[in-house]
Amino acid sequence: MLTRIDHIGIACRNLDETVRFYRETYGFEVTHEEVNEEQGVREAMLRINGTDDGKASYLQLLEPIREDSPVAKFLARNGEGVHHIAFGTDDVAGAAAVIGGRGVRVLDAAPRKGSMGSLITFLHPKDCGGVLTELVQANEDGAQH
Amino acid sequence: MLTRIDHIGIACRNLDETVRFYRETYGFEVTHEEVNEEQGVREAMLRINGTDDGKASYLQLLEPIREDSPVAKFLARNGEGVHHIAFGTDDVAGAAAVIGGRGVRVLDAAPRKGSMGSLITFLHPKDCGGVLTELVQANEDGAQH
Repeated sequence: MLTRIDHIGIACRNLDETVRFYRETYGFEVTHEEVNEEQGVREAMLRINGTDDGKASYLQLLEPIREDSPVAKFLARNGEGVHHIAFGTDDVAGAAAVIGGRGVRVLDAAPRKGSMGSLITFLHPKDCGGVLTELVQANEDGAQH
Repeated sequence: MLTRIDHIGIACRNLDETVRFYRETYGFEVTHEEVNEEQGVREAMLRINGTDDGKASYLQLLEPIREDSPVAKFLARNGEGVHHIAFGTDDVAGAAAVIGGRGVRVLDAAPRKGSMGSLITFLHPKDCGGVLTELVQANEDGAQH
């Protein structure tokens, strides 16, 4: 059902500085950048490795673009750091239905748009041992690779 | 230098309950369990996917076994949740030397024992955008696979 660690989402105050840190310290390169207006973030995806389901694992660096975005609220409460983790699936709606049926609150009534044309949904962190958890169905046009 | 997301470390109060959550909710299975006396934790490794460097990505669930362990202090401050992230390398001492030379404080003078016979070192979270970051050199006897 879930076949990879799709990404680790990291909240930061300055995306350009954080991208520079990951590039200059570890050699990780930005695969993709975009603004997600719905979530109120500017983000960069850094591909770390390929995975044996034919996709890849990324770091997702997130900078809020408005003060009422969830990532802005996270930064105000916690400071910079890991914001969420995401598992990859080839059927996000199906996986969310199964997981919801196992007693975990699914935060989105229907999957919504994630990075690089993916479909995503979030699970309630209080039902997941304090871990904000996302499910990701990669865009099959290959942009996720 | 760093070729995979090796694991995501998650702090929990009850390892058995948390293992059960990950198994029953997502179908993830425990690959390995051990006690790390030095770090004061009981831990379970759940293999999520293979990686294109020939190794794998895991969740590492961590329960403190004494109150003065770093994970116990983390739980007291933050509650349950993501504790650290770890990148895999084939040379942890070399990678730590390079990264230390780029201005990040390396928390261990020499690599120490990690999960499944690996060698590990930690980087200071204040130098890594609030993210406690670990470097992992897998045990080459194949236990990491």
